[in-house]
Amino acid sequence: MPSRPSHPRDMAALRQLCRDLPAPDMAADAAMTDHDSHLTKPPGSLGRLEELARWAGRWQRTDRPRAERVDIIVFAGNHGVTAQGVTPWPIDVTRQMVENFRNGGAAINQIARVSAARLHVVEAEDLRPTADMTHAPAMDETTFLRALATGMRAVRPDTDLLCLGEMGIGNTTPAAALCAALFGGGGAKWAGRGTGLDDAGVRHKAAVIDRALDRHGTRLADPLVIARYLGGHELAAIMGAAIAARYMGIPVLLDGFICTAAVAPLALLHPHGLDHTRLSHCSAEGGHAHLAAALGLSPLLELGLRLGEGSGAGLAIPLVRAATACLCGMATFAQARVSEKA
Amino acid sequence: MPSRPSHPRDMAALRQLCRDLPAPDMAADAAMTDHDSHLTKPPGSLGRLEELARWAGRWQRTDRPRAERVDIIVFAGNHGVTAQGVTPWPIDVTRQMVENFRNGGAAINQIARVSAARLHVVEAEDLRPTADMTHAPAMDETTFLRALATGMRAVRPDTDLLCLGEMGIGNTTPAAALCAALFGGGGAKWAGRGTGLDDAGVRHKAAVIDRALDRHGTRLADPLVIARYLGGHELAAIMGAAIAARYMGIPVLLDGFICTAAVAPLALLHPHGLDHTRLSHCSAEGGHAHLAAALGLSPLLELGLRLGEGSGAGLAIPLVRAATACLCGMATFAQARVSEKA
Repeated sequence: MPSRPSHPRDMAALRQLCRDLPAPDMAADAAMTDHDSHLTKPPGSLGRLEELARWAGRWQRTDRPRAERVDIIVFAGNHGVTAQGVTPWPIDVTRQMVENFRNGGAAINQIARVSAARLHVVEAEDLRPTADMTHAPAMDETTFLRALATGMRAVRPDTDLLCLGEMGIGNTTPAAALCAALFGGGGAKWAGRGTGLDDAGVRHKAAVIDRALDRHGTRLADPLVIARYLGGHELAAIMGAAIAARYMGIPVLLDGFICTAAVAPLALLHPHGLDHTRLSHCSAEGGHAHLAAALGLSPLLELGLRLGEGSGAGLAIPLVRAATACLCGMATFAQARVSEKA
Repeated sequence: MPSRPSHPRDMAALRQLCRDLPAPDMAADAAMTDHDSHLTKPPGSLGRLEELARWAGRWQRTDRPRAERVDIIVFAGNHGVTAQGVTPWPIDVTRQMVENFRNGGAAINQIARVSAARLHVVEAEDLRPTADMTHAPAMDETTFLRALATGMRAVRPDTDLLCLGEMGIGNTTPAAALCAALFGGGGAKWAGRGTGLDDAGVRHKAAVIDRALDRHGTRLADPLVIARYLGGHELAAIMGAAIAARYMGIPVLLDGFICTAAVAPLALLHPHGLDHTRLSHCSAEGGHAHLAAALGLSPLLELGLRLGEGSGAGLAIPLVRAATACLCGMATFAQARVSEKA
């Protein structure tokens, strides 16, 4: 039976949890493939929707998947590296936007309503900033594991589909640093405009990232250590939520660059570490396309979004819902008395 | 005031109707651009959603567009050219699928429910087939104008957004023939697999199209004449619905290859003839990408669909709804007391 795993007490326990991720239900997959072949449509004509429905069923462990109860969790966090001038926005905006989420005024509130999803906002580590990664590890082990557990706890069992998002002024910098450490290429490959840097701002951000990479050097040898040294509280919480969802049988829609960077360590710790996720969209933030390619993820939407908040994941909910509704609600040729192809 | 135009009594009146298509409300557009700049998000961060919301408002003639009441109209029709063996499906399937729509068993029924849209099915010319285009014009003027008027009548004034779709065994052949006559390139460029032809089937279909083009030769000199000679009843109805929607202030989501081919004549009769439409998706049917490029339309979704029924348009409804909800429902920086960028 799928169930929430215990919070790992140390890094070794976390590493084990990531190595033991459950496999999908391939018997359900075969049953869905068979059922799909009898539905009143030319085979394959629903394109990616057909695969999306089976994906949801494989992880929900049922041949009749559903996407009725959908949660969007937005994890918020602050970042010590903002002291290095990597963003034009004051750090107070993270808390102000959390208030905006609570009052229904942000983009994700409107998207959640349109997508009939429940929106939850979680303040990781009470919005205390991480340490500045150019001087010290962003988090010590205790803080990293606590932030991760916050994410694990936030996943509710009565959820058919989970959307992960984030809010954190300056958090494209830790996301880019994580990618650079995990996949190489240096700050220049991964630093983007974030919420509106000019060319000089992007160059400065890349240099800040390179300084952090130099500072920690060979200590950045393992994906989880990288996440602790270069990530952030909300990124750790996102990874925790993705791990818990895997154990709880809940498929996950990833959002943009930061969200995808947050779960990237799982792909390096387990050959199928992200199989229970789908990438909702490709962000306009430059690093996201590189990251999607590195992880072999193909986005469902390409709308030039670069907002975060889980906005792209929220927009992709109706696609999963339509996919499962078609698989489970359509008539077969026999039921509808529709003639088959000659 | 936007209102439904009278049905054109002859081809000259139809031509005039197409030349006199109303312009968008640019004062509403300017008001929306200004309002958007105060919302609690980095400027431009909602990507294509920002443009989609303004598009809806320009045609609804309001700076507070909405996409609450959405209609999907599926026009069904049959085609004499099926006598040439261009599809492996029996022509009876058109009527059987109409029954399936009425009984809630088709893909579009599930998609309409998920997208909270009203689904209407209209049998153009009572599903009598057109004439075989390889021997005669598909429709005489009376029939063409009647099918067009059927489409005009089907648009309801209490609609915020209209999705157009079709069902008609064999109708990728008239759609491809229309494209070949309008844009050149011959049958080989525009004929695709439809609902499942093999390579030999596609070559045969291309040859059938080339025969029809040869048969009618220089008579195919005008986009509306081309629509009458090579199109179909449901294609004419789709064009009629698109014209009526333009006059009635209703933005339109186009579906796949057949739907887009049906409205292509408008783009050739008026320099902004399709400005009140957006292309919901790019179909797996090969000709659709060529056609989108020829018309300068950029699809909202790319999911490898090739079903028709308005399925792609139905899937794009939540994007327009989210776009208008963000524009109209988000708080401004001042309202939410969020600090602006330094």
